Amino acid sequence: MVLSANQFREQIRSGLHTGPTSGFCEGFVQANLAVLPKEEAFDFLLFCQRNPKPCPIIDVTDVGSAVPKLSAPGADLRTDIPKYRIYEKGALVDEPTDLMNYWRDDLVGFLIGCSFTFEEALVRNGILMRHNEEGVNVPMYRTSIETVPAGRFSGPTVVSMRPVRNEDIVRAVQVTSRFPSVHGAPVHIGNPEEIGIEDLSRPDYGDPVTIREGETPVFWACGVTPQAVAMHTKPALMITHAPGHMFVTDLKTESLGVI
Amino acid sequence: MVLSANQFREQIRSGLHTGPTSGFCEGFVQANLAVLPKEEAFDFLLFCQRNPKPCPIIDVTDVGSAVPKLSAPGADLRTDIPKYRIYEKGALVDEPTDLMNYWRDDLVGFLIGCSFTFEEALVRNGILMRHNEEGVNVPMYRTSIETVPAGRFSGPTVVSMRPVRNEDIVRAVQVTSRFPSVHGAPVHIGNPEEIGIEDLSRPDYGDPVTIREGETPVFWACGVTPQAVAMHTKPALMITHAPGHMFVTDLKTESLGVI
Repeated sequence: MVLSANQFREQIRSGLHTGPTSGFCEGFVQANLAVLPKEEAFDFLLFCQRNPKPCPIIDVTDVGSAVPKLSAPGADLRTDIPKYRIYEKGALVDEPTDLMNYWRDDLVGFLIGCSFTFEEALVRNGILMRHNEEGVNVPMYRTSIETVPAGRFSGPTVVSMRPVRNEDIVRAVQVTSRFPSVHGAPVHIGNPEEIGIEDLSRPDYGDPVTIREGETPVFWACGVTPQAVAMHTKPALMITHAPGHMFVTDLKTESLGVI
Repeated sequence: MVLSANQFREQIRSGLHTGPTSGFCEGFVQANLAVLPKEEAFDFLLFCQRNPKPCPIIDVTDVGSAVPKLSAPGADLRTDIPKYRIYEKGALVDEPTDLMNYWRDDLVGFLIGCSFTFEEALVRNGILMRHNEEGVNVPMYRTSIETVPAGRFSGPTVVSMRPVRNEDIVRAVQVTSRFPSVHGAPVHIGNPEEIGIEDLSRPDYGDPVTIREGETPVFWACGVTPQAVAMHTKPALMITHAPGHMFVTDLKTESLGVI
């Protein structure tokens, strides 16, 4: 039985579901979480605005509110993610299963689009995910593509890579172009050196995957970018989801398709 | 001869061009201007983020900077618009031709997408603009479609209306869907009462236009919305372009097409 987003979040809130969220609630948009104090929020929102491919914003809470009222009005960002990470001045200090001890009146929650959404659309079009076939995390790389800075926030774009059969590349561009709010079209096709990646077998995050004869590596902007960039500024407090433990919204994937 | 955006802005800066900008620099994106103090900037940016159809952001300056570095890095928002409006606590107090006496270190400039861009795309597809044929301003209406509030900012969505031949409606949806950053697809087709418009012949802004036999009124979210909403909060200072006197960016219309 496929759970609704609301039912699934209830399981998380009550401690019944504690693991990663991948593969749950098919058809519902999952999102990355970044929480920052109001003081940093304007620059961070502006950074996301200027870099929509790596940092596509799904929802932003009101200052002090943990309710993502556009994407999941019945949810609570303090309790509805299985595992969180607390960073103080860039250092990981805790991995709690809720934020009741950490939430403050001056915090703003950002939900940022995640590649699960466009991967679902690719798979529906017969373009399979090698990292899923091989049971590993998608390979991610820091590139020479600089983000557009905003205030204190700046740094390189991180991309994820998926091998695509040559005859499927056009379709992969079409399918992901429909979803600008979850990273959209690829940022590069084919030549890793051109975007500053020296060795595909040594990703900066995640795991390497096999590229077969007749396949080309295709690169999409990755939601790790805003977290990496924010962390780089060593904010007094920053809260994120733990890797793979995403926030499940009420939004249907298809509702994000621009055409 | 078609001027480049940069040449046209130079004419404006030096006082050679003082009138409206419609019809100049074909193919370049024109934008609405809204300037607010940093204090209001986060809520206003969040308001735009939450209401992308009426408030599609093209560019936001750094605090205190008048340079829209993503959309026109060589430009100056203080001098490159033919006419401005200065509002204090919601009241119009001046209509200067530059902002040299008004600019401050705490101001943030927002450039917001304008319908000229998608109108150009419609015309290229044989869908003509009745308000241009009749030599008047596009009719605009306040609707019953509430925007999503952010901080102090809230209020109704304003829409613009264009009559479209019934056989062209599908094409009009397709063409404007390509441009989510300049209002995107229509918000309503056909029945003004359903969105709270009582009388098409009495627009709230602009002028009425003729709807002919075999045509249907089609409604798009309008860039007047963010200005109307911001004005409603009576900010201590707000600066806008004067109606029809837009900022011309270096961006080509086609570069905003998502597919």
